[in-house]
Amino acid sequence: MRYREAGVDVGRADALKQEIGRVVRATWGPAVRPLPGGFAGVMGWPSPDGGAPLLAATMDGVGTKLHLAIEAGRVDDAAADLVYHCADDLLCHGARPLALLDYIAQARLEPAVIQAVVRGLARACAEVGAALLGGETAEMPDTYLPEVVDVAGCMIGTVAPERLLGADAHPGDALLGLAAAGLHTNGFSLARRVRAASGLSLGDPLPGGAGETLGEALLAPHRWYGRALMPPLERGRVRALAHVTGGGIAGNLVRVLGPESRARIHPSGWPRPALVRWLLSAGGIPEADARQAFNLGIGMIVVCAPEGSERLAADLTAAGEQVWPIGDVVQGPRGVEWSG
Amino acid sequence: MRYREAGVDVGRADALKQEIGRVVRATWGPAVRPLPGGFAGVMGWPSPDGGAPLLAATMDGVGTKLHLAIEAGRVDDAAADLVYHCADDLLCHGARPLALLDYIAQARLEPAVIQAVVRGLARACAEVGAALLGGETAEMPDTYLPEVVDVAGCMIGTVAPERLLGADAHPGDALLGLAAAGLHTNGFSLARRVRAASGLSLGDPLPGGAGETLGEALLAPHRWYGRALMPPLERGRVRALAHVTGGGIAGNLVRVLGPESRARIHPSGWPRPALVRWLLSAGGIPEADARQAFNLGIGMIVVCAPEGSERLAADLTAAGEQVWPIGDVVQGPRGVEWSG
Repeated sequence: MRYREAGVDVGRADALKQEIGRVVRATWGPAVRPLPGGFAGVMGWPSPDGGAPLLAATMDGVGTKLHLAIEAGRVDDAAADLVYHCADDLLCHGARPLALLDYIAQARLEPAVIQAVVRGLARACAEVGAALLGGETAEMPDTYLPEVVDVAGCMIGTVAPERLLGADAHPGDALLGLAAAGLHTNGFSLARRVRAASGLSLGDPLPGGAGETLGEALLAPHRWYGRALMPPLERGRVRALAHVTGGGIAGNLVRVLGPESRARIHPSGWPRPALVRWLLSAGGIPEADARQAFNLGIGMIVVCAPEGSERLAADLTAAGEQVWPIGDVVQGPRGVEWSG
Repeated sequence: MRYREAGVDVGRADALKQEIGRVVRATWGPAVRPLPGGFAGVMGWPSPDGGAPLLAATMDGVGTKLHLAIEAGRVDDAAADLVYHCADDLLCHGARPLALLDYIAQARLEPAVIQAVVRGLARACAEVGAALLGGETAEMPDTYLPEVVDVAGCMIGTVAPERLLGADAHPGDALLGLAAAGLHTNGFSLARRVRAASGLSLGDPLPGGAGETLGEALLAPHRWYGRALMPPLERGRVRALAHVTGGGIAGNLVRVLGPESRARIHPSGWPRPALVRWLLSAGGIPEADARQAFNLGIGMIVVCAPEGSERLAADLTAAGEQVWPIGDVVQGPRGVEWSG
C-alpha cells in the first residue's frame, strides 16, 4: 500500500508524497474512507441497502527477498510470503481476505518459475481463505534482468463497518508485540549486502543460531496473524493493529496512532532474534538503521485496552503466537520513542 | 487476466496452462463464478442478503508500450492506457469500475517517472469512474534494467448478477466491431522491432498516414468503451463483449463463444488503419502473424441479436464510436474463421 497516511510513504521525497497524495485523493469519491493508517484502501460497497460490508484492498510486491528465494530454489515460498503480507495488511483494518490477483513478470517466461510462483500463491491463498481470482503474466525482455522474476499481488477483502480499524491507538492503550517468523519481506536489500560481504553461503549455519542455516533463517516465511487475531477482532477486543513492514516498528506503529498519542517502545521487552543479531554485527549496522530496516523480531503490534491486555495476550498465546508486552501509548506529540 | 478459459493463456505451454488452471481452481470456493471468457475474475460478494452485486476484478500490465512512452516522454499516457485496458476487461463481464490499485517498479525510483505514472492513472481513473484506492512502489536494482519502469494495475468492479456477461455468443448472433484508437496495449514487442529496423524516429511522419507522426500513431491511447457501452449493457442489449488484446481478434473472440458456436470474421468489412498497413509492409509481417499480434483496427467486439444490431450500431455511433458489422456467429466447431 502506497497511499497511506494521505500519501506518506517510505522512500519518497516529501514534495513528491504530497503531490501524489493530492492526485490520488482527487480520484476518491464519497465512498472512499480516508484512513490515516492506510495499510489497505477501504471503500464502501455501493449496495442498495446501507448495511453492506466494506471493500478493502491492498497491493504489495515480494521485493528483493525473491533473489534469495531464487538462489535457494524456493520461489514458491516467496510467493506465499506475498499473500501473508497482503493478508496481514488487510487485518490492520479488521478486514478478512476474499481474493488475490497477481502480477508475475520476467524477461523471458520460465514455466518452472511461473508454476512455482502460482503454486506458492495458491497454497497461501487457501490458508488465508482467499480465492486466487486472477492475474497477469508479462514477458518483457527490455525491462527485466535475465533469470529474475518479479511478483506483485492485489488482495481484496471485506470488513463490517462496525469492525473497521484505523488510527485508533490512544493514550492509555497497551502494546503487545507478536513474534515475527524472520525478516518477513522487508530489509532484504540490506540483508543481502551483509550476507554478500560476509562470504557465507545460504547453506552455512547461521552464526549464533540454534542450528538452522543462514538460508533457512533468511527465507523463513512471512507469518500470517489472521488465525490468532480474527476471533478477538470479531469481538472488538483490538483497538488497532500495526503490521511491521518497510519502516520497521516505529515507521508502522506511527500509522495507527491517534492525535496527541505517543507510543513508547521498550526494546528490552522481547528477545532479539539470532538473525538480526548476526546482521547487525556482521554488517556493522547502526542500531538506528536496523530499527528502520528490520522488524527486529516483532511482526505485528496489537493495540488494546490495558485492562484486557493480559487476557488477550494469553488468548493469542493459546492460538499459537509468541506475545510480549512491548510498550504503551501516552499523551504527547504524535510519534514513537524507544526507551531502554 | 491470466486465468481465463480455465487456465488458457497466450504464450504459455499447454501443460503449464493446465497445471496452473488446476492449482488456481483449487483455491476457488463456491462464491467464485468460473467464467469461460475470463477477462476478469468475478465472485459473489458475501453479503447477508442475496441481492448484493458481484465483485469483479482484473490485473493487467502496460507491457512494452512503456518503452516507447518513456522515449517520447509520455509515461503518463501509458499509465492511463492501463486503466482503460482494465476497465474494458471489466466491461466484458458487464462490470463497472470501482477502484484501481497499482504496482510501479524501477531499478532506482525516479520521482518524475513515478509522478507521471500516478498522474496518468489518476486522470484515467477519474474518467472511468474508479477510485485509485492504493498501490505499491518497489525499488529493485537487481531486478529491473536501468531507466525503465514497469506498471501493473488491479481494477475492482461490480456487476449486478442479472447483468453478468460471459461466453454468451451463440449461433445467429451478429458481431459489431468498434474502432480501436491504435494498437492499444498489444503487439508492441513486434511493432518496436519493425520500427527499429525501419530506422524511423518517433517524430517522423507515419508513412501512408494523414500527417500524424509515427510516435503519435504508436502511442495513441487505449480506447475506453464504457461511455458508449454502459447504457446498452444496462438495458440488456448486449449478449457478449470481447476486448481485443493479446491474441488479436480471433484469440479474444473465441473466449466469448458458447458451445458449438463458430464466429466468421469478414476482414474486408472495416478499413485497416495506416499504422497497421505500414507495420505489415515495413516489417514483412505475414498476415497470420499480424492477426495474432495486432487488433487490426478493432478494439472491442460487440455480440448482439441480429434483429437489434442496426439500432445498436446507430446508438453506439451516436455515442462517439466508429462501428462496423464485422461478421456473425454460426453453428459449427467452436472457433473463429476469417472469410474474405
